[in-house]
Amino acid sequence: MTTATYYCRRCGFKEELGEHYYWRCPKCGAPLDLIYDIEWSPKGQGLARYSDTLPIKRINSLGEGGTPIVKRKIKGKTFLFKLEYLNPGGSFKDRGAALTLSYASMLNYRRVVEDTSGNTGIATALYARVNNMQATIVMPQYAPEGKKNLIRLLGGSIIETPTRPDAAVKVLELIDEKTCYVAHTWNPLFFHANKTVAYEAFEAGFNHGTVVLPIGSGSLLLGVYQGFKDLVELGLLKDMPTIIGVQGVSSAPIYELIRGKTPEGDSSIADGIMVRDPPRKYEIADIIKKHGDIVLINNDEVLESLKELLKMGFIIEPTSAAPVAGILKYMENNGDIEEPILVPLTGSGLKMIDYLYSLIRKMKTKT
Amino acid sequence: MTTATYYCRRCGFKEELGEHYYWRCPKCGAPLDLIYDIEWSPKGQGLARYSDTLPIKRINSLGEGGTPIVKRKIKGKTFLFKLEYLNPGGSFKDRGAALTLSYASMLNYRRVVEDTSGNTGIATALYARVNNMQATIVMPQYAPEGKKNLIRLLGGSIIETPTRPDAAVKVLELIDEKTCYVAHTWNPLFFHANKTVAYEAFEAGFNHGTVVLPIGSGSLLLGVYQGFKDLVELGLLKDMPTIIGVQGVSSAPIYELIRGKTPEGDSSIADGIMVRDPPRKYEIADIIKKHGDIVLINNDEVLESLKELLKMGFIIEPTSAAPVAGILKYMENNGDIEEPILVPLTGSGLKMIDYLYSLIRKMKTKT
Repeated sequence: MTTATYYCRRCGFKEELGEHYYWRCPKCGAPLDLIYDIEWSPKGQGLARYSDTLPIKRINSLGEGGTPIVKRKIKGKTFLFKLEYLNPGGSFKDRGAALTLSYASMLNYRRVVEDTSGNTGIATALYARVNNMQATIVMPQYAPEGKKNLIRLLGGSIIETPTRPDAAVKVLELIDEKTCYVAHTWNPLFFHANKTVAYEAFEAGFNHGTVVLPIGSGSLLLGVYQGFKDLVELGLLKDMPTIIGVQGVSSAPIYELIRGKTPEGDSSIADGIMVRDPPRKYEIADIIKKHGDIVLINNDEVLESLKELLKMGFIIEPTSAAPVAGILKYMENNGDIEEPILVPLTGSGLKMIDYLYSLIRKMKTKT
Repeated sequence: MTTATYYCRRCGFKEELGEHYYWRCPKCGAPLDLIYDIEWSPKGQGLARYSDTLPIKRINSLGEGGTPIVKRKIKGKTFLFKLEYLNPGGSFKDRGAALTLSYASMLNYRRVVEDTSGNTGIATALYARVNNMQATIVMPQYAPEGKKNLIRLLGGSIIETPTRPDAAVKVLELIDEKTCYVAHTWNPLFFHANKTVAYEAFEAGFNHGTVVLPIGSGSLLLGVYQGFKDLVELGLLKDMPTIIGVQGVSSAPIYELIRGKTPEGDSSIADGIMVRDPPRKYEIADIIKKHGDIVLINNDEVLESLKELLKMGFIIEPTSAAPVAGILKYMENNGDIEEPILVPLTGSGLKMIDYLYSLIRKMKTKT
C-alpha cells in the first residue's frame, strides 16, 4: 500500500506506515521522521498533484493546495506572495490536515482530537468532515468566538480549558483506539504535506532566491525546507534557497536556541506564531543555521506590514504579515538578500473582518 | 493594443476598445456586446492564463481564477463543484472586477463606482486597490455591517441609500471623466471574464454533461455560456453542455419571461440572486430556451442544501447553495439529467460565520 517508514532518530524505532498512527515515537516519545522514496511526476491539481512525492498516495481532497502566486514590488524588491489563505479552510494548515486525516481515515479512525487556538482547529474540523470523522477541538476559553463558531459550523465539538497549555494536557486524555491525535506540532505527516508549497513555487518558476517563513510550531518551515531539499536531491533544483525564519519577540524559542539570549517586547498580535516550546525546535534551529537566518518582529512592525498588505488587496490575518515585517527589518539590518523573495501569506482575514477593521482604524487614529 | 470591438445589436453602434469605457451603448442605452477573435493558447495561472481568449490582453491580477474542482456524489449523482468562493475576494465576482478594472486602469481612470448589496462591492474595492484607483460603493443602508466593513477595510468609501433601487439611481450621479461605473449587470467586459470558469472546467476534464448556474444579474450564466460556445467554435468541444438556470421564487424575472407566470413564496435567503430586473434578461432567456431549462427554489430548499454542503466541508454563503437546491429539485420533477453536473459554488461563508452558525442552529431547533 505504501513504502513510507516511521523512523526515530533518537532510539532507532522503525515501522512501515499502514498499520499504526503515530504522532510521536511510541518507544521513546521523541518526534518521528518519515523515510520514503520519491518520484517526480506531478499530475492533476492541488495536493494530490504530488502524491508520488508524499508519504501516502491517496489523499481525500477538498481542493487544498495549488494556491496562486502573485508578484509585487515592495521597497524596490521583488516579492512572490503565495496565497495560502485561499485554501478551503482559509489557511495553509489545510494541507497538513488533508494528509494527516487521509491517513487516519485509511486506518479506520472515527474520531480526531486536536489542541489549538486557531487555524489548525478549523483545518481539523474541516478535514474530519471530508473523511467522515468526528472532530473534538480543545481550545483555551479566551479563543475568539468567531473561530469557535466556525469549528462548530463544521460539526466540531469544542472543549474549553483555562489556558493554551491546559489544552495540550487535556487533549491527551481524549485519545483512544478509535480516536487519533493530529498533533500538528509533532506529527511528521502534518509537516510533510507542506512540502507541496515548495513544489508549487518551483513549478511556477521559483528556482533561486530567498524564502521567508513564520515559525510557530515550525510545521511550515520544516515542510518547505524538506520540499526544496527533495527538489535538489531530484536534480531539479541546483541550490537550496536562503531560508529566513521569523519569530515574535514575545515568543522566540528558536531565536533563543540559536543566539542564546531572550528578547523583550510584545508580538502577541501575531498570535499564530506565539508558540512557546515547539517539539521540533532543534531540527528547526539546525535548518536556520545551515540555510539562512532568523529575525524577530514586534506588534508595531506586524501592524505596519499588515496595513501595507491590506492596501495591496491581500485579505489576511495579522500573523500573515509577520514574515513581510521580518524580511523588511532583516534587509534594513543586514543589507540586501537574493531576490525573488518567496513569502507564503498563511491565513485568511475574511473570518475576522471587524477585528481587522478596528485594528486599522486604531492605527489611523494614532498617526 | 487590442482588436476587440464594442457592438450594439440594437442600433448597430461599433467602436474598438482602447479609447472609451462603456458600460452600455453610448448611442441608444442598450447592453453592448464585444466582438473579437480568440486563440486557444492557455499558459500561466488564473485569469491571465486565457488572455488570448479575452477582450483585453493585460490583466492586473491578484491571483483570481484557477479555482479548484472537487468531485462529490449527491443522491448517487456525480457533481463537480468549482470552488469560486476561493477567489481572492471570496467570490466569482473577482474575475469580472479584475478584467473590468484592468481596462479602466489602461484608460487612466482614477476612480470607480458601483451599486451593489454584496460581493460585487467587495470585488470592486479589491481590484480598485490592485489598480491604484479609489472605489466608492453605493449600498442600501440595510446591507450587512460585515460586508460594509470589508469594503472599508479595502479602502472603499460607502454611500448608503434607503433601498437597493435607490443605489442604482444614486450611482449614476457619481460618474465623471475620471470615474468609471463597473455596472456588472450591464457591462460586457464584466461577464466575458466569467468565460474562464468554462475554460478551466474544460481543462480539468469537463467535456459533456450539465452546468447549473444561479441567475441574479446573469453575469455568471452569460460568461459561462460564452466560454463553452468559444470551446465549441474552436473545435475543442463537441457539443454545448445542458445549462440549467436557477432563480428564487421571490425574484424570478427570467422564469417569468420564459413561462409567462409569476411564482409565489420567499427566496430572500439567497440574497445574491434577488435581482428584480436584469438588463440582459432577454439574452439570458434565449440561452436558457436554447440550451436547457430553468428551475425555482425557495428558502427552505436553499437552507436544506446549504446544510448538506457545509456538512461536506464547503464554507459557502447561502446563495451558493441555490444551484444545488435547484438541480436536486429539477431532477425530482423532470427525471435524470446528463452527468457530471458542474456547479460553481459562488461565494465564501468565511465573511459571515456567525450568521451561518445561527441559521444552522435554527434549523436544528426546528427539526
